[in-house]
Amino acid sequence: MEDLPLRDDLRGRSPYGAPQLDVPVALNTNENPYPPSPALASALARNVEEAAAGLNRYPDRDATRLRAALADYLGHGLDGTRVWAANGSNEILQQILQAFGGPGRTAMGFEPSYSMHPVISRVTCTDWLPAERSGRDFGIDPQAAVEAVRRHRPDVVFLTSPNNPTGTALPVETIAAVAEAAPGMVVVDEAYAEFRREGTPSALTLLEEYPRLIVSRTMSKAFALAGARVGYLAAAPAVVDALQLVRLPYHLSAVTQVVAATALEFADELQSQVKQLRQERDALVEWLRSHGFTVAESDANFVLFGDFADRSAVFAAMLEHGVLVREVGPPHMLRVTVGTPEEMSAFRDALMQVSADHR
Amino acid sequence: MEDLPLRDDLRGRSPYGAPQLDVPVALNTNENPYPPSPALASALARNVEEAAAGLNRYPDRDATRLRAALADYLGHGLDGTRVWAANGSNEILQQILQAFGGPGRTAMGFEPSYSMHPVISRVTCTDWLPAERSGRDFGIDPQAAVEAVRRHRPDVVFLTSPNNPTGTALPVETIAAVAEAAPGMVVVDEAYAEFRREGTPSALTLLEEYPRLIVSRTMSKAFALAGARVGYLAAAPAVVDALQLVRLPYHLSAVTQVVAATALEFADELQSQVKQLRQERDALVEWLRSHGFTVAESDANFVLFGDFADRSAVFAAMLEHGVLVREVGPPHMLRVTVGTPEEMSAFRDALMQVSADHR
Repeated sequence: MEDLPLRDDLRGRSPYGAPQLDVPVALNTNENPYPPSPALASALARNVEEAAAGLNRYPDRDATRLRAALADYLGHGLDGTRVWAANGSNEILQQILQAFGGPGRTAMGFEPSYSMHPVISRVTCTDWLPAERSGRDFGIDPQAAVEAVRRHRPDVVFLTSPNNPTGTALPVETIAAVAEAAPGMVVVDEAYAEFRREGTPSALTLLEEYPRLIVSRTMSKAFALAGARVGYLAAAPAVVDALQLVRLPYHLSAVTQVVAATALEFADELQSQVKQLRQERDALVEWLRSHGFTVAESDANFVLFGDFADRSAVFAAMLEHGVLVREVGPPHMLRVTVGTPEEMSAFRDALMQVSADHR
Repeated sequence: MEDLPLRDDLRGRSPYGAPQLDVPVALNTNENPYPPSPALASALARNVEEAAAGLNRYPDRDATRLRAALADYLGHGLDGTRVWAANGSNEILQQILQAFGGPGRTAMGFEPSYSMHPVISRVTCTDWLPAERSGRDFGIDPQAAVEAVRRHRPDVVFLTSPNNPTGTALPVETIAAVAEAAPGMVVVDEAYAEFRREGTPSALTLLEEYPRLIVSRTMSKAFALAGARVGYLAAAPAVVDALQLVRLPYHLSAVTQVVAATALEFADELQSQVKQLRQERDALVEWLRSHGFTVAESDANFVLFGDFADRSAVFAAMLEHGVLVREVGPPHMLRVTVGTPEEMSAFRDALMQVSADHR
């Protein structure tokens, strides 16, 4: 590869991504453990077969029907003109940075956070400005955040809520304070929004007030559709219009559009699994604390826990027990995805056996 | 939108894309007029239902099975390490420019050609260097091309063969001459390769010799899968590795992977439709010439024809007859996609009625 005329800032880099290992209990990529129900799978097959009859034609470039259905799902008085969809929220974020970032521009994020924010910034040639999270739950101090934004005047600010990999959601007041101070776009990455604890409002409630605010979401987690790659955003219609200037035409296949629209029809069924996962998550947090682990409050389908003198050793020992967690975020912590009751039981058993040696 | 902090070079631009009009005879976007057969549609439904059971999990990030199947289809001794796939060849081209183009770098193309090449260059902040095609069939003069490449030293050169919107394929010697002279990557966009006339070799035959050569393809045209968005490329393994540094992780959904792999199993069936379209195309070229129109030689599933003093008037009059063609490319010409025999008959009838007034 060294002989190729690669862009200078990519030289020596490695591709992003968790190891794709085949293990009995995979709790490393925050997937929803519940596969689509047989009823949803049949509906998908039926609707894809119907769509197949027209696959020789290009898809609806504007994904009109899907965007209306996503707006209905989100509520908050949104409609299709305020919603945009793409191949995973990664592509949503890439389009945002292609429109509002780029050479000579900057994006700011509060770390530790979703590692794709700096990666996509680099791919779009946007300079990355890391700011810090603090406190036991890795929150954002509103005053420090506003000061950082005023000082650096980033073109795009990323706020992840609930944050990944730490798990805690931001108070809506913090988001409002940053949106008030920011000279450019503010992106609230709400990939895990449906898992947040009762009483935490979504940044969707702020959209009316802040025309440069964008809320990004995904169907990968709550809708258990990581394999289908559907991300979306809500924002002012002008923001959606701006993204049309950088989106690849026909970026979203007719099949993806129909798969996503079909899954939305099963939202009630899927929400009940979300409820189950939230309960499982709360039980996990309690269990970990009762066994002396440090745990960040979680509004997501994963939990960050520690402290470990050598987290790599714990990670490896867990893997030997067939349980794959993620070595990510703060140096003494590990991240575990909330799985089925059986998977969590396997996780607890493995951790008990492993942790005695590694505290 | 003017109030938003949009990237400066995007201000005042319009989104790319043909008008999405609902007309009886749509011959404007080079779609294959033959929908997937009922057998293929059933196979798609069956395989998607099977894949649906795992949609809660992320897809294979490396699309291993699909890439091997695409390599088999291409032949030329290729294997999966030399093939890469993405959401349409537009995403393939974007990834190439993200890896090898970017700020301070240049891409060259020979115009008129596929209008997405400069559009994607702009989105990836790569400077666009237009060079010229010449002659009756809008070919590329090898000596002039080599001189242009030597003078401007572009980081990426695009060669479209068969060219869109003009239709004619490049002699493989021209491609070799440019590859010999180019200091950077050379991308041969072969979206319409399967439609080329007998005896025109593909640039795939040159891959062994030129490690910086990339051949891009699509399943939109010959495989009649425009709605499924599957583009791919063949190149040296190091080139495929380099693209891993810029691809969004899990860019290609599990559904897209299975849809594409299923369609490849029906390659024979689809090839017979390609043969039919080539015959229809040759008949169309002959008919147009016999009626006094200028026609570029076509190796594609479309034909560029003229000359019209006012092509916009002809375009509008054709539309009134329910036939949508494309106003694109050289100023006195129009482009028509090769459709079914019935569609081509409607096209000929409309053109006869319209052209008397507009020659």
